[in-house]
Amino acid sequence: MPMSRKIIIDTDPGQDDAVAILLALASPEELDVLGVVAVAGNVGLHHNANNARKVVELSGRTDVPVYAGCARPMRRHLVTAEHVHGETGLNGPDLPEPELPLQDQHGVDFIIDTLMNAEPKTITLCTLGPLTNIAMALVKQPAIAERIQEIVMMGGAYFEVGNITPAAEFNIYVDPEAADVVMRCGAPITILPLDVTHMIQSTPARLDAIKALNSKTGDAVHAMLTFSETFDLQKYGREGAPLHDPTVIAYLLKPELFEGRHCNVTIETASELTMGMTVVDYWHVSGRSYNANYLRSGDAEGFYALLMERLARLP
Amino acid sequence: MPMSRKIIIDTDPGQDDAVAILLALASPEELDVLGVVAVAGNVGLHHNANNARKVVELSGRTDVPVYAGCARPMRRHLVTAEHVHGETGLNGPDLPEPELPLQDQHGVDFIIDTLMNAEPKTITLCTLGPLTNIAMALVKQPAIAERIQEIVMMGGAYFEVGNITPAAEFNIYVDPEAADVVMRCGAPITILPLDVTHMIQSTPARLDAIKALNSKTGDAVHAMLTFSETFDLQKYGREGAPLHDPTVIAYLLKPELFEGRHCNVTIETASELTMGMTVVDYWHVSGRSYNANYLRSGDAEGFYALLMERLARLP
Amino acid sequence: MPMSRKIIIDTDPGQDDAVAILLALASPEELDVLGVVAVAGNVGLHHNANNARKVVELSGRTDVPVYAGCARPMRRHLVTAEHVHGETGLNGPDLPEPELPLQDQHGVDFIIDTLMNAEPKTITLCTLGPLTNIAMALVKQPAIAERIQEIVMMGGAYFEVGNITPAAEFNIYVDPEAADVVMRCGAPITILPLDVTHMIQSTPARLDAIKALNSKTGDAVHAMLTFSETFDLQKYGREGAPLHDPTVIAYLLKPELFEGRHCNVTIETASELTMGMTVVDYWHVSGRSYNANYLRSGDAEGFYALLMERLARLP
Amino acid sequence: MPMSRKIIIDTDPGQDDAVAILLALASPEELDVLGVVAVAGNVGLHHNANNARKVVELSGRTDVPVYAGCARPMRRHLVTAEHVHGETGLNGPDLPEPELPLQDQHGVDFIIDTLMNAEPKTITLCTLGPLTNIAMALVKQPAIAERIQEIVMMGGAYFEVGNITPAAEFNIYVDPEAADVVMRCGAPITILPLDVTHMIQSTPARLDAIKALNSKTGDAVHAMLTFSETFDLQKYGREGAPLHDPTVIAYLLKPELFEGRHCNVTIETASELTMGMTVVDYWHVSGRSYNANYLRSGDAEGFYALLMERLARLP
Repeated sequence: MPMSRKIIIDTDPGQDDAVAILLALASPEELDVLGVVAVAGNVGLHHNANNARKVVELSGRTDVPVYAGCARPMRRHLVTAEHVHGETGLNGPDLPEPELPLQDQHGVDFIIDTLMNAEPKTITLCTLGPLTNIAMALVKQPAIAERIQEIVMMGGAYFEVGNITPAAEFNIYVDPEAADVVMRCGAPITILPLDVTHMIQSTPARLDAIKALNSKTGDAVHAMLTFSETFDLQKYGREGAPLHDPTVIAYLLKPELFEGRHCNVTIETASELTMGMTVVDYWHVSGRSYNANYLRSGDAEGFYALLMERLARLP
Repeated sequence: MPMSRKIIIDTDPGQDDAVAILLALASPEELDVLGVVAVAGNVGLHHNANNARKVVELSGRTDVPVYAGCARPMRRHLVTAEHVHGETGLNGPDLPEPELPLQDQHGVDFIIDTLMNAEPKTITLCTLGPLTNIAMALVKQPAIAERIQEIVMMGGAYFEVGNITPAAEFNIYVDPEAADVVMRCGAPITILPLDVTHMIQSTPARLDAIKALNSKTGDAVHAMLTFSETFDLQKYGREGAPLHDPTVIAYLLKPELFEGRHCNVTIETASELTMGMTVVDYWHVSGRSYNANYLRSGDAEGFYALLMERLARLP
Repeated sequence: MPMSRKIIIDTDPGQDDAVAILLALASPEELDVLGVVAVAGNVGLHHNANNARKVVELSGRTDVPVYAGCARPMRRHLVTAEHVHGETGLNGPDLPEPELPLQDQHGVDFIIDTLMNAEPKTITLCTLGPLTNIAMALVKQPAIAERIQEIVMMGGAYFEVGNITPAAEFNIYVDPEAADVVMRCGAPITILPLDVTHMIQSTPARLDAIKALNSKTGDAVHAMLTFSETFDLQKYGREGAPLHDPTVIAYLLKPELFEGRHCNVTIETASELTMGMTVVDYWHVSGRSYNANYLRSGDAEGFYALLMERLARLP
Repeated sequence: MPMSRKIIIDTDPGQDDAVAILLALASPEELDVLGVVAVAGNVGLHHNANNARKVVELSGRTDVPVYAGCARPMRRHLVTAEHVHGETGLNGPDLPEPELPLQDQHGVDFIIDTLMNAEPKTITLCTLGPLTNIAMALVKQPAIAERIQEIVMMGGAYFEVGNITPAAEFNIYVDPEAADVVMRCGAPITILPLDVTHMIQSTPARLDAIKALNSKTGDAVHAMLTFSETFDLQKYGREGAPLHDPTVIAYLLKPELFEGRHCNVTIETASELTMGMTVVDYWHVSGRSYNANYLRSGDAEGFYALLMERLARLP
């Protein structure tokens, strides 16, 4: 059996972040979660760190440490998305206040120290929120760039364009300067954008199947995704809502579920109108050098089969 | 029978511009083409004006006057697209040098005078190229804005994003300041973007049908579209190439072939990375006021049926 | 005796514009004023054109035709400066409604036709307001660029930075895209910026001397400059107000009154914060090619001696 | 006697940074230097940290700890100024390799910990280089903002405009995003810009007086400033070079030597042309709220008298 892959999950949970964390924690044979780091994003840092602790606790994997990273973006005022995720960022399920402690160390320093103390190219960063913590770590200690095995991020959009603005996806928009730093850091990057996640719809049938797991975790996930659905149903009028962040973990577990290509992705940071846009040179017309593996489609059936199988392992 | 609709065609022909002009000139019962005005775009103004004369002559409608407008964009250096359209802008068919004269009057003044001398709201501007002439007319004589019945333009992209850059469609990119002036002028605007035109593919079967018209015009159109196809086949690997500009005329003839919605469209003019992007608030998230009827899909079968029927009327 | 220099004055009068026009019209041996063209700027086009007619009439030179050019900037909404110039743009003197007619031809076309019909390099454009008309002429008929003898403009600032915003001078700020087109047109350009005009203060002693001319023109100029003074006194707390536009004419008459150097001047058009700034590479650090003779100082004593001598010639 | 003021010096030495550090270390009755933190700027971080250690050692104040902060700006590629400061950043004097150790703690964490562990409003940050470390500390731990007594920075320019570009001063240009974060952090800020430092010329007579101190420090400072002079003499043709960074320390010691006003200062981060410009609303025309005490003039005689008196105290 191959050794499990060491990952750090950087996240602003968020219902879909929570499902991603659960999916990772349910897959210990493939993924060794070294820590979960919270960042300001969907809601403020305090809520996000609290939610991360709740979700780790729900999984029963209280061996996994949780850290708080940055409470604000690198340059801009924090924009949050309570209109999507609810006041606490994790509205929907009724999870108890966590007993799992928050680590004292700053999340940025946890990322730096973990990378500097491990063998080079053995740690993968999974980012489910704004890229503030990763970029801060890269500026504070530039030597980590060449020690990162891969950055696998949920963020951006091209054919689906934006969600928070007509041109930008939320995770990138919240901290475009951080995203720019990350995109230009030289480490291998794989992007799971809205183009993919809008194909991974949590339809009523899929929600019913999760409910039917008849477990504490299944109930919580069902409650989360039912809450999430409200927003997207209103906006797009589709049957079901996209499931964003778990695609990052699914990609690590089964990359064959996704298709895309290597190309250049550059972040707009100059114009307010298009601020935070992920300008993807998918057709290779710009002559800019490739810096990312940009995925544009995913197999929803395969994804949900994987998700169901793994959620069934949790309490 | 209703009176035919008075239109001015502003264009940088262009193989697909040529088909659009032919489609309009083949439809005199619905469309009264007051003039064709050339603008710099696909190639330089001289070639574009010459091509406009050739195409009008090909149709036999030498009663329609042709004007030359602006030879350069409002602020930027001219970018052309010989790599798509060939050296003359109309590579493919072997059309004779035109005898139809170019009018002395500047195209911008023709647009202004026509609008100022007609009943308000009786003239529609059909734009198939960069919007330089229209914007120059609006700046030189702002009073025309409220006299325009409608501007129907081929330009921009949202779900298909860009073609000349990853973020911008060619017509808008060539003169983004002009596009910005037009989008904010207050006149009713309908946009036929790449989102629509990429659905209107000139497949081999459709090209064969055009060839089978067995007419001078059919042969010329077949040669034009066969030439056009080369570029898109290489880039997208699709079976057939999008047919852009004729959708503008098709929309005037059969608006029911297209679907879209009213929303805000703002042109990016501040950042080089996204310069010329049509930022379409299709999901109404920005709060910006609606200024355009943005079409996002078209009925290819219906379109080609219309095109074939009309081309068959020409010599 | 040398032939007088042929000039077109493009202007948005404006008290100081008025003095510039009078200075030019009082100098027929050196300057042959082919026409005065109004542009929107200090106030709206209608007032500016009316003021131009009043001023020409005041000088007695009713042989000089007056044209109206553009009523709005090329891309932006018109910003005016009634807080500086008063409601009519020429508050202060009590001048009669003009009998001198406004020409029918559009000012932009007058500029184009004059340049195209004259020997190349024999016409100088003197601009005292936003550069809309000149840029529109350059876009409508690019061939004029190499036929212009020189453009001598009042506009911009570097060491004095801005007046309408912390970074921009009014004439450039009103139409930065037009200024950009002009700065990159290739014609010889001389700039009289705030750096110069803030050295040319209309002190009480100088105002008294103008009043002492005891003429209709002297009275009007005294009333104009007394009105102008109010604004600058409040803002800068100086003894007297800068006299801007007449420096353009003074430079044509006595260039030895001014000092500066050739360098690159680029107009900011991308950022709202610095929009319309004239970025002057006075120290030649940018490597950008020289496109302007940028004057940074002027001899106030020499200037006022010249002004007094010439105003004394008028009725 | 009042308690001495606690300061942290953040710096990229730099000949003039060195003189500033010496001036502070020579003033223990007024200034308690808690630490010196190096940042990438004039040259790379390694050289700057080394230079900081050399200068502290030269002063004999080896009780003052030296830290290394960030090796790169927050978002942009590092721009350095070896053409001004020489290869090592401190060309001129022949100082021995330092024995004073570099602290292990990261400079950003030293700043955060010092502020969080002290009484609020008791620590002043003196910045002599790019603002990367300060901004990184503000993003990593936003709670420090309201604990800072004051930030006194050398940086920016308004009436003297730029030095590294026509619009930007070097310290701000190197990391404009960091400068923007600092300017908007809410702490009291005093700025010593080029407008002030260009008045503080190290003339030959002043250099001679420093040489005449006849001390190890005097010799080193003389060698530094003689080296510095070369660049400015060539560029501006003035008699002597501006002395930038020591004005920060002089302001703390004798604020009465400087004049300025409270106003808004906003950093340009959107446009490459004006990138890093300090847009100073000195005339209060923008309506933007005041965030800085912007000094625009300094008393050179008073400054040099202070400098001489203090340098004479050092070995």
